[in-house]
Amino acid sequence: MIMAASVLVIMGSKSDAPVGEKVTKILDRLGVKHEKIVASAHRTPEYLREAVLESDAEVFIGIAGLAAALPGAVAAITIKPVIGVPVSGKMNLDSVLGMVQMPPGIPVATVGLDNGENAGVLAAEILALKDPDLAKRLEAYREERRKAALSG
Amino acid sequence: MIMAASVLVIMGSKSDAPVGEKVTKILDRLGVKHEKIVASAHRTPEYLREAVLESDAEVFIGIAGLAAALPGAVAAITIKPVIGVPVSGKMNLDSVLGMVQMPPGIPVATVGLDNGENAGVLAAEILALKDPDLAKRLEAYREERRKAALSG
Amino acid sequence: MIMAASVLVIMGSKSDAPVGEKVTKILDRLGVKHEKIVASAHRTPEYLREAVLESDAEVFIGIAGLAAALPGAVAAITIKPVIGVPVSGKMNLDSVLGMVQMPPGIPVATVGLDNGENAGVLAAEILALKDPDLAKRLEAYREERRKAALSG
Amino acid sequence: MIMAASVLVIMGSKSDAPVGEKVTKILDRLGVKHEKIVASAHRTPEYLREAVLESDAEVFIGIAGLAAALPGAVAAITIKPVIGVPVSGKMNLDSVLGMVQMPPGIPVATVGLDNGENAGVLAAEILALKDPDLAKRLEAYREERRKAALSG
Amino acid sequence: MIMAASVLVIMGSKSDAPVGEKVTKILDRLGVKHEKIVASAHRTPEYLREAVLESDAEVFIGIAGLAAALPGAVAAITIKPVIGVPVSGKMNLDSVLGMVQMPPGIPVATVGLDNGENAGVLAAEILALKDPDLAKRLEAYREERRKAALSG
Amino acid sequence: MIMAASVLVIMGSKSDAPVGEKVTKILDRLGVKHEKIVASAHRTPEYLREAVLESDAEVFIGIAGLAAALPGAVAAITIKPVIGVPVSGKMNLDSVLGMVQMPPGIPVATVGLDNGENAGVLAAEILALKDPDLAKRLEAYREERRKAALSG
Amino acid sequence: MIMAASVLVIMGSKSDAPVGEKVTKILDRLGVKHEKIVASAHRTPEYLREAVLESDAEVFIGIAGLAAALPGAVAAITIKPVIGVPVSGKMNLDSVLGMVQMPPGIPVATVGLDNGENAGVLAAEILALKDPDLAKRLEAYREERRKAALSG
Amino acid sequence: MIMAASVLVIMGSKSDAPVGEKVTKILDRLGVKHEKIVASAHRTPEYLREAVLESDAEVFIGIAGLAAALPGAVAAITIKPVIGVPVSGKMNLDSVLGMVQMPPGIPVATVGLDNGENAGVLAAEILALKDPDLAKRLEAYREERRKAALSG
Repeated sequence: MIMAASVLVIMGSKSDAPVGEKVTKILDRLGVKHEKIVASAHRTPEYLREAVLESDAEVFIGIAGLAAALPGAVAAITIKPVIGVPVSGKMNLDSVLGMVQMPPGIPVATVGLDNGENAGVLAAEILALKDPDLAKRLEAYREERRKAALSG
Repeated sequence: MIMAASVLVIMGSKSDAPVGEKVTKILDRLGVKHEKIVASAHRTPEYLREAVLESDAEVFIGIAGLAAALPGAVAAITIKPVIGVPVSGKMNLDSVLGMVQMPPGIPVATVGLDNGENAGVLAAEILALKDPDLAKRLEAYREERRKAALSG
Repeated sequence: MIMAASVLVIMGSKSDAPVGEKVTKILDRLGVKHEKIVASAHRTPEYLREAVLESDAEVFIGIAGLAAALPGAVAAITIKPVIGVPVSGKMNLDSVLGMVQMPPGIPVATVGLDNGENAGVLAAEILALKDPDLAKRLEAYREERRKAALSG
Repeated sequence: MIMAASVLVIMGSKSDAPVGEKVTKILDRLGVKHEKIVASAHRTPEYLREAVLESDAEVFIGIAGLAAALPGAVAAITIKPVIGVPVSGKMNLDSVLGMVQMPPGIPVATVGLDNGENAGVLAAEILALKDPDLAKRLEAYREERRKAALSG
Repeated sequence: MIMAASVLVIMGSKSDAPVGEKVTKILDRLGVKHEKIVASAHRTPEYLREAVLESDAEVFIGIAGLAAALPGAVAAITIKPVIGVPVSGKMNLDSVLGMVQMPPGIPVATVGLDNGENAGVLAAEILALKDPDLAKRLEAYREERRKAALSG
Repeated sequence: MIMAASVLVIMGSKSDAPVGEKVTKILDRLGVKHEKIVASAHRTPEYLREAVLESDAEVFIGIAGLAAALPGAVAAITIKPVIGVPVSGKMNLDSVLGMVQMPPGIPVATVGLDNGENAGVLAAEILALKDPDLAKRLEAYREERRKAALSG
Repeated sequence: MIMAASVLVIMGSKSDAPVGEKVTKILDRLGVKHEKIVASAHRTPEYLREAVLESDAEVFIGIAGLAAALPGAVAAITIKPVIGVPVSGKMNLDSVLGMVQMPPGIPVATVGLDNGENAGVLAAEILALKDPDLAKRLEAYREERRKAALSG
Repeated sequence: MIMAASVLVIMGSKSDAPVGEKVTKILDRLGVKHEKIVASAHRTPEYLREAVLESDAEVFIGIAGLAAALPGAVAAITIKPVIGVPVSGKMNLDSVLGMVQMPPGIPVATVGLDNGENAGVLAAEILALKDPDLAKRLEAYREERRKAALSG
């Protein structure tokens, strides 16, 4: 269970795969090394714990729906930045509030509902603070986005 | 950290004490042995884990506000019934939905906002299935409630 | 209307059948005897009352949408544990809040929206407190769930 | 438990008294005979049932907070019009949705949060259909309200 | 624009027709004379006003979505009972709260979202107070509903 | 009831006065002539109608809480711009959604909860399109706001 | 980037086009000159700024979903009236509240969810204050709407 | 307006000071250099822009209530990580959703309502990726929190 990647992307369930793919697509686009696993805060808490503790990732991304405890469970066992992506379902407020409303001292950096792209960009922004080349790729990506919008 | 009680009442934070007292008050009233601790799914996850695993309680009650992951974290490591009491705050929907919307396979028996009394009664109802004397005390309590309401 | 089952599953309407099937599927899987009926707190209150009083079930599960008063109506006439499954519709907050926000003294153990599986597991967890074989089956089911998640 | 009044006002709990007083104040003002009791759908379901069945009231008003099942429980056992007043608390959406979202066939005429006055006026409007004098008093009350507003 | 019916059913827009049909279907079933029109509180306020004032209906039913001001606008110009049916859309809370939260003195008897059947039943319950034959038909309808539920 | 003012500020109830004062304070500050009355869409619909039709105001501001139908009722009888200010209460979503969710063809320009200042500024922005001096005063006010913020 | 139109319609993203078309359809119908662009408060803030500052439009309409900051960003750099149309998505409350809840001093005239028609009508109402011909066309449009509703 | 700090804390209004103090208190505690200013996305957009562009901070924290556009406006002009703290008010869902629901490509790392401490901890976690001493201080802080919880 050793992982050599800058970002560990953790999905709470196989059904979160479409959002997970948005994350890895943008990470690939930005040239950020990553690994992606399925691990549940509730069904496989020990595996989740081991995966996080043994990982040498610098940023964690937790993707989950419903009560969406996954990224909070990760944040509880690491001082690395943890990003959370709430997944849409029948209520939506459950996953958004279940991620963002963490107790003081254990933050989850929550992005928008199903917004895997923003989780990936945020992870890249964090890593770019010590990787000037990544910063350049982020600028280029931002510029490309800008042009695509203007060409509308 | 060995506990010899039928019910282990776990508060996520010291600030949950008023709701915790509602729980212990009704458990005392019904003659149910219990122990009460503070343990956080996010700040002290290992202590929480040990406390649950070492406990010989038959029912667990988790009391928490905000994202309210505590009872779910307990439910993830035991097959004993876990009751959750969402604690009120600035949003309320966060703690209610964060408890009730558990993934399939790991239930939390959620009661109403700040409703510590109902958590205690539910725990007693569960334990009364194999304790006829407790069942009688529950009936008496229910009758007393009934009379108090009628005397209004 | 005599029932010899550990769990009485009550659906408020025929339209709740898909959620009811999730409940009985997991109860069958766990080897828990159960009976399933349709009875409404509003359309057939007397039949509901009789069914509950005459039942020798140890746990009741009420499945209902909209105002979702069914499990509360059951809880009002028994001191056995009552589990509620809110059914989704056009609002969702109606059935979730209508179940969980019971008055003090009359708890409904509410599980997630449409989450029949969790109602069944919770009922089994309660019954397993005095049935070591069921406890073993619950552990096996939990383990199976764990492996299925890890194989993702 | 015999009642000789046009309107039976039922509060689910003693704590609903302030809203109950708004109801009786306007009924007194409009000269509508009424009786007021405390009866709970959950704590005293049998007493509630008897009170409704034995009453010769023509309109029922149920006042309740939280899941607010009271007026629905009344509507389940009478074909007389039942008016519901949701009482405010920590969530508010619980009592409003718990009253208004009744299943097809069993209506509760829901008025606004804590709006006891509107429950009383609605009851009077219903009774005025066969009481021309009451209709005149309603018109006078409406006119008085109008003038009070204009004098602002 | 003279109407000779017990109930005037007013839809705020042609798109409310499916809910309107639920109302007239149950009124037909219960033998209640009714008329149905389209009139908007915002697009045709004068026509709405005339239709209400010239009508000799005893009960008004307003069906509307979005801000759902229609039944309130009717209630403002009559002391007859006014029933409101909120119509579902993209938000749902808009029409429910826009109907039920009327100012003191001007009640709208709000029923559930899209629940045209309950509006019709409530209108019949009101009219049955002075029409014993209608009361019998209501009882029969209720009994039929009961049997249909039991046959489930 | 003749009014010679650029803006007619209408409060639905005397209790809306604090929000009404915010509106008139900023209108005075910006030198916009205005008149302020209390008129209710539900309690005094005819007076409201007359006040609007007889007014030569160019912009109307409706201030209301609860279902908040007032500005919509004004918009229904004029093609002048109508601004709505939802007033806070126990629910807040009622007045916000009750104003903003108008049917197509009859807009209400809704500003924030209790935000009387924004209603006044918006009215001034509209009137400034044909009043260059007012535009200058608006610019000055904006600049003053800017400096006050920077001095923080 | 010079624009010679009375109304500048700005969509935050290409995906807002269906709502944008509702706006331009009604503006065309009412004979109001307009231009329509795509510009994002977040992706192309500088282009947005330039487009607004260089425009000689008298009214701005911002169309956006999600956090929906677009019309607020426009309002921050002009004292011309700015109308906002929240676009529906998975939450809806995000775009509605993100537009209407502006800070004091910087109003956005918010209309209903996806209600492009109302944005166009509101813009026309504002412009009609100094364009009597447009006022007549607005009256005609209103009358047409009225007749279409009555013919239902 | 040159700033030499690792974190630039920006409050949208002076009234956000209590939350701002929570941020600076934890940053001081963790030994993170920071500067704190008041700048509004709506009232002082140019000053905000300059402050962000001229700053050599590595992480930005935006604190705002209501529509809460501030952190999004910062994120639009930098590729540095931007953290958002929604400030509580009369609605709460406005500021939470207004921050978290950013469009794809421009993330805001949203933390809980009024949870300034979590914004500070998250900023420190990000900076600690290239500052081993800060990582140690974070560990120590986490341990202290843990002990404080256990001593409860």
